[in-house]
This record gives sequence, structure tokens and C-alpha cells, in this order.
Amino acid sequence: QFSKAEIDAAVQLLLKLKVDYKQMTGQDYKAGCPPSENLIVSNNGPAADDCDGEDLVDPWNVSASSTKGVDYDKLIVRFGSSKIDKELLERIEKVSGQRAHHFLRRGIFFSHRDMHQILDAYEKHKSFYLYTGRGPSSEAMHVGHLIPFIFTKWLQDVFDIPLVVQMTDDEKYLWKDLTLEECHRFTVENAKDIIACGFDVNKTFIFSDLDYMGASPQFYRNVVKVQKHVTFNQVKGIFGFTDSDCIGKISFPAIQAAPSFSSSFPQIFGGKKDVPCLIPCAIDQDPYFRMTRDVAPRIGLLKPALLHSTFFPALQGAQTKMSASDPNSSIFLTDTPKQIKNKINKHAFSGGKDTVEEHRKYGGNTEVDVSFLYLTFFLEDDEKLEKIKEDYTSGALLTGELKKILIETLQPMIAQHQERRKQVTDEMVQQFMTPRPLNYKF
Amino acid sequence: QFSKAEIDAAVQLLLKLKVDYKQMTGQDYKAGCPPSENLIVSNNGPAADDCDGEDLVDPWNVSASSTKGVDYDKLIVRFGSSKIDKELLERIEKVSGQRAHHFLRRGIFFSHRDMHQILDAYEKHKSFYLYTGRGPSSEAMHVGHLIPFIFTKWLQDVFDIPLVVQMTDDEKYLWKDLTLEECHRFTVENAKDIIACGFDVNKTFIFSDLDYMGASPQFYRNVVKVQKHVTFNQVKGIFGFTDSDCIGKISFPAIQAAPSFSSSFPQIFGGKKDVPCLIPCAIDQDPYFRMTRDVAPRIGLLKPALLHSTFFPALQGAQTKMSASDPNSSIFLTDTPKQIKNKINKHAFSGGKDTVEEHRKYGGNTEVDVSFLYLTFFLEDDEKLEKIKEDYTSGALLTGELKKILIETLQPMIAQHQERRKQVTDEMVQQFMTPRPLNYKF
Repeated sequence: QFSKAEIDAAVQLLLKLKVDYKQMTGQDYKAGCPPSENLIVSNNGPAADDCDGEDLVDPWNVSASSTKGVDYDKLIVRFGSSKIDKELLERIEKVSGQRAHHFLRRGIFFSHRDMHQILDAYEKHKSFYLYTGRGPSSEAMHVGHLIPFIFTKWLQDVFDIPLVVQMTDDEKYLWKDLTLEECHRFTVENAKDIIACGFDVNKTFIFSDLDYMGASPQFYRNVVKVQKHVTFNQVKGIFGFTDSDCIGKISFPAIQAAPSFSSSFPQIFGGKKDVPCLIPCAIDQDPYFRMTRDVAPRIGLLKPALLHSTFFPALQGAQTKMSASDPNSSIFLTDTPKQIKNKINKHAFSGGKDTVEEHRKYGGNTEVDVSFLYLTFFLEDDEKLEKIKEDYTSGALLTGELKKILIETLQPMIAQHQERRKQVTDEMVQQFMTPRPLNYKF
Repeated sequence: QFSKAEIDAAVQLLLKLKVDYKQMTGQDYKAGCPPSENLIVSNNGPAADDCDGEDLVDPWNVSASSTKGVDYDKLIVRFGSSKIDKELLERIEKVSGQRAHHFLRRGIFFSHRDMHQILDAYEKHKSFYLYTGRGPSSEAMHVGHLIPFIFTKWLQDVFDIPLVVQMTDDEKYLWKDLTLEECHRFTVENAKDIIACGFDVNKTFIFSDLDYMGASPQFYRNVVKVQKHVTFNQVKGIFGFTDSDCIGKISFPAIQAAPSFSSSFPQIFGGKKDVPCLIPCAIDQDPYFRMTRDVAPRIGLLKPALLHSTFFPALQGAQTKMSASDPNSSIFLTDTPKQIKNKINKHAFSGGKDTVEEHRKYGGNTEVDVSFLYLTFFLEDDEKLEKIKEDYTSGALLTGELKKILIETLQPMIAQHQERRKQVTDEMVQQFMTPRPLNYKF
């Protein structure tokens, strides 16, 4: 038997050794897994799924090797994007005349492509438009699904520009065991949640692929242009498609690419094909837009700019994305206050110590604590968040208390969302989804 | 030196040996090319390009090993279709109450799939519709391009049913070095030639893929359904696509498949998805519809029936299809009487002998003589055609005289076509190409 002091000393030594290991190798320590000799990560392409802890990130799979989640700095290097640094943050504030959104300040939107060019043009009074989207795979959206929409709403308010929202119901039909009718119904239901984020019908066009493809010859023309300039070899490399995949999957990336071009929306942009596009999205969607940016100059169109977000962690921990198919992995937008409370208390992964005594002594780890991570998304007050972090790290705040703060943050937020969603009628959805001019002249 | 009699005897012996060779091996004799041991032709898939003289037939390539052109009986076996036999011919005449078109009587439409089912249903007062198409790769159409339309017009007149004509301008954009605008312009120009065949605007819908895909959500829904149920492996096997092909080519077959389903045209069929479809087309288009027929039951839709035509021979001989890109390979619908005369006299491959004396003695070969083959397409009078055949074979009719008959058949035919085409206004094209109900109730 060892004394408590001896155990404490051993734990501290172990923690220090892990930190040293990471500094030497650039990799997280894993028992029984020697450091990889090749420390240079590939600049692009799918991550190798070996024990050096490379994360797997593509539009259909996200899995991190560390409990802290995906290593986003590595991802920036691998995807060839740029970090949103202090300078860009300050520029966004200067050009917009607004304090940066807390998603920007806290590194939730952490990476970009060509954001400086968007700001350059905007400073010269050249407008741009926003494009984001959603894959409607079920009726139920969870809080993580709101991230791009909350942020897009902020961008729209700050820059006063049009927004197009693509609902990829065709993609969901191709990938999932669902009928066309189901996918289209999910589009309409999800559109209600999106509209409930507060978008202005005069500035926003939401479209179902299944409808808009059959309603806009210009959209289809851009799809075919992209399809002519991308080979199967390329989509195999970018998306990992195989010979057994259906031809719909293989050609789908062109459909997600097309809204990046203003000529896909003649009713909004009056046929102009040179209105720049800015795409806020989660980083796992980047492969689509790497492809789009590669094709754009070859078909005489502008490359879209991007703002990438980190993933919203599952309740069980930051190693995976939330899943709409596992009800306990997420807080859904339809959850009752009681469900929210139970899920967080039961399933939210804790960064605290096993006993109150240990926790008071060593404190909790906010880097892996899901309740704390959720608060970085939804608690807007910086000072309050900083205080929580200090108290949790010091051990002054217990896991149960931290969970209580999150519960009390989410319950009213989701109740309000449900209230706003109730106000969204089918006619309103119809209005948002009708191809039409918006309140902007181009 | 040999006497004329000795040479004649040797030639006759050689001809007889060739006939014997073919009877023994099932293959045409070729000097220096031993008979293949494997006499069983594959039931499907691309033809082996070896010296056993298998023909190559797919939507982009047609080449025959024999000067008589493609061996259509072999093709029926390889493609798994059925021969249009005497019984079917008589049934068509019985059900329609009309004498069979000379394209049917003369074996120009020679193969079918499920034509008996179409007739069974028609006898029970269940209507069907016709679907044919054209790939608009240039402004200029040649006489060969008229074959499916002349025959389709006859079918429409005889059965009194709706017709949809697909102009695959998206396909031509994907396959050729053309812009979208060029392909669409060719669609409109070619539509004028099609309309000039005499179609009734109240019974006929002509559509550009580039326009209709963006004008009909139901059409796109059927395209996506097909795309979900066909893998890259399958289109690789059927069409010979490779990893270097663009994703547009790979997914295009679904777009040619979709008009086979009546639900792609809700404006015509009132949303009914069980109206049977009959497709008259050249046999090289069959791979698209083998694929379509394979997919149809898996997406709950009817298999289309088909009527296949032989190829219209190039002026230079029956071994290849005419090509719109070689002006001397074909008689174009824009040719002047003088051009028609010169092209036939200069380029039409002759089955006659080298000298008048030999010709008078041995006679000409109507099986390879292009002028005679053209007459089988365009000279409707059976007796007259039979007389020409006899006289040419006997040597009574010389090549120059045969060519003159063809010239005098084509000159007025094409002049009349040009006259009718002149009457086709842009407004008429617009009318034919507007999605709308036709004069039929479903």
C-alpha cells in the first residue's frame, strides 16, 4: 500500500511525463503505442487511421484520437486552410464595426479560406452573399445543428447580405435508407428550425435540392459544368468513393458545389456571375469546397471563401460528432426541460475527479468536460465563462454545479427556440422556399 | 498470263470457298486471320475487338468487321433482345389495322424488347407513349438522323399516342468540346428538323435536358432514383467508363433513363406512373435501356419496351455509322441538289464491278452497295425496289444508273424537308418545347 502523498506525487509525475512526451513527439501519449517516426502530416487527403493518433475527418466520419477531440491545428495544415488569427479577428471587427461573435472570439470558427479577399472587396463596397446548408436526415435537429445557423445569422446581420440555405434532401436519399418523400418532409421540418433562428424572409432563400434542381435551369447548368470538370479519380481521392458506390453519390459533390456560384440564383443576383460567396460550415464539409475551389477558375467562376467551425461535441465526449440517430448523444431541439436535465446529468462526460475530495484538491479539466464545452458555445458572457473555468479548474466548482449551470442555460434557450418554431407556419416555409428576388439589388 | 475464262473460274471458286468457310465457322473469311476457336459469342457486354470479326457497338462507337456492316443477328444474341419476326410483324398490322411501315417490312427496325406486351395492353385499350431522342452535337443533321423520327411519326399516326423527344444537350456538353450555349443552340436547330418531319404539336413534347431538368422536379426525382440504384461498377461494365471519366458522364445514363417513366411528365400523364413506354431507337442506344430495364422494377416503375433499328450506313460503306463531323460521310439535310448529286457520285461506295464489261457479266452486289442500301430506306415502292435489285444483281443496271435513281429519290425528298423546315418558326419550337398537357387524357 502507498500513502496518499506517494500516489499524488506519482500522478503528478505521470502527468508531467505525458506533457514532455507530447512536446518531444507532437503526439498524445498512448500506452503501448510507440511514437510514429514520420511526424510530417500529409497536406491533404484522408488521414491515415493508425496509432499515431491522426484524426479522421470527412463529410461522413469524424473521429478523434484524443479525448480533447480533433486536433484542429493539425487539420488546418492537412486541409491547407488558414487559421483565424488575431489579425483577421480584428479586421472583421473593423470592417463590420461590430464586436466579433463569441464563436469567433472563442475559436469555434477557427479556420478560413480567402476571408481577407471577402473583406477587401466589402471595404470597396462590393457585396457578397452567404451560403450554408443542412442534410435533412431526420425530423429532429440537435443543438449542434444550430451552430452554423446562429453564426450565419450573425454574419447576415453584421454585413447585411443575402443568404442561400441548401437542404440536401437528394444527398440524404442517396446515402440513407429513406424515400424521396421522407427526405423532402425532413427538409420542410428542418427548415422550420432554421427559420426559428430568426432569419428574415426578405434576405434569405432556403431551397430543397429535389425542388430547386427542377425549378432552375441555371442551377442545373452550373451542376453540369462542375460535373464535366471533375473526374471519378478526383472524387475517389477527395471523398473516398469506390466502384461499388452508386452513380448518384459519385456525382453529388457537384450539387453541393453549385450554390457557391451566384449564377445559380439568377432571381437573386439578376444573372450576375461574379458576386463572391462566403460559406460558413463545419470543417468536415471542407472537402466539397476544396473541390469547388479547384474547379471554379476552370469554368470561369469565382472561388468561394470559407469560414470553418469545430465540431459540436457529443454528450459522451469530444471524440465524436453528435449523431441525430442516437437520442442520448445530443440535446434535441424538441427535448423537454426534464429531458435536458436528465440527459446532461446522466450522459454529459465530466472532466471532474472521481470523488469530491479529489476534485476539491486537483480541480476539473475544462478541456474535456462536455458541460463546460457546451457553455463555450451557448454562454455568451465572457466574464461569467472565465469565472466558471477558474472555479472548475481550481476545484471550487463541482461537476454537479457545472452541469446545473449548463442545464439552466439550455432549458430557456431551447424553450424559446420551441416557442419561435411554433410561430413558423407552413406558409412561411413556403415563402422562404420560393425562388424569388430578395431585398438586394445586384 | 491467264485467259479470261480461267480468271472467271478462279473467282467463282474463291467466292464459293468463302461461302463454305462462313458456313463452317460462322465467321466471315479474312485473309491471314484463322477462325476463332471460341464460336460462342458473349451474351452481353462490350464485343471483344479481335480478329474473329466481332462488331463493336455502343452509344459512341460502331464498327463492323464486314463490308456488309454489323451482323445484326449476332447482336440480338449478344444484347439479349428479340428479333422482329413475321409473327410480330403480322401482329403489329393486325392491332394497328395498317400495313407495316417499310422500315419494319425490310428489317431496318429488326429487334425489339417486350413489343408483344405493348400490343397486349393496347388491345385491352391501355394506351402507351413513345419516347425517342437526339444528341444535338451540331447544327447539321444528316438523312440518317431522320430514321427514328420518320418511324416514330408512323407509330404515332398508327397508334395515336403521345410522344416525348429528349434532346440530350447536357450529354453533348459532357462528351464534346462545346459550350452549354452551343449545345442548347444545336437543340433548337435540330428541333426544327424534327418538327419538319410532320409532328403534331398537340401530341408531341420536345425537351432540352438543360431546360427540362431545371423545369420539372418530377423528372429530377426519377433521375435521382435511377442514380441511387446503379453503381459505378455497373456503368463501367455497360458503357466502358473509366476512373478518368468525368462524374457527369458517369451519372448521365440516369438522365437518358428517366424519360422511360411516365411520372417524369406529370403535365402529360397527370402524375400516372404506370403508362407503358415504347422507345424506337438505333440499336447502339440499347445499353442505356438495358440499364433502365434492370433498374425499373427496383424503383417500382415499368420497364420500357424497345424497337431497335440498324445503322444508317456512311456513304463510304456499311462498316461505320455516318458522322456529323465528316461532311463527305453523309447527305446532310442542308445539302443542295448539286451537293447531293456530287456526294453520291463521288463517295457512295459501289457494289458494282470495276468495268462495265465485268458488271454486265457478273452483276453488282446490293448487300454492300451504299446507293442500293439508301434506297431500301427511302424508296417506299417495294416493287420498284425489287426490280432495281434484280437488275443490279444481274448486271442490267449499272452503278451510275443506280446512283441516278438514288439522286432523284433524295433530291426532292430533301428539298421538301427544307421547305417544311423553313415553315418552322422559333415560336413553333417554343410551343413544342413548353412543358404542357397534350391532347390525351390519362
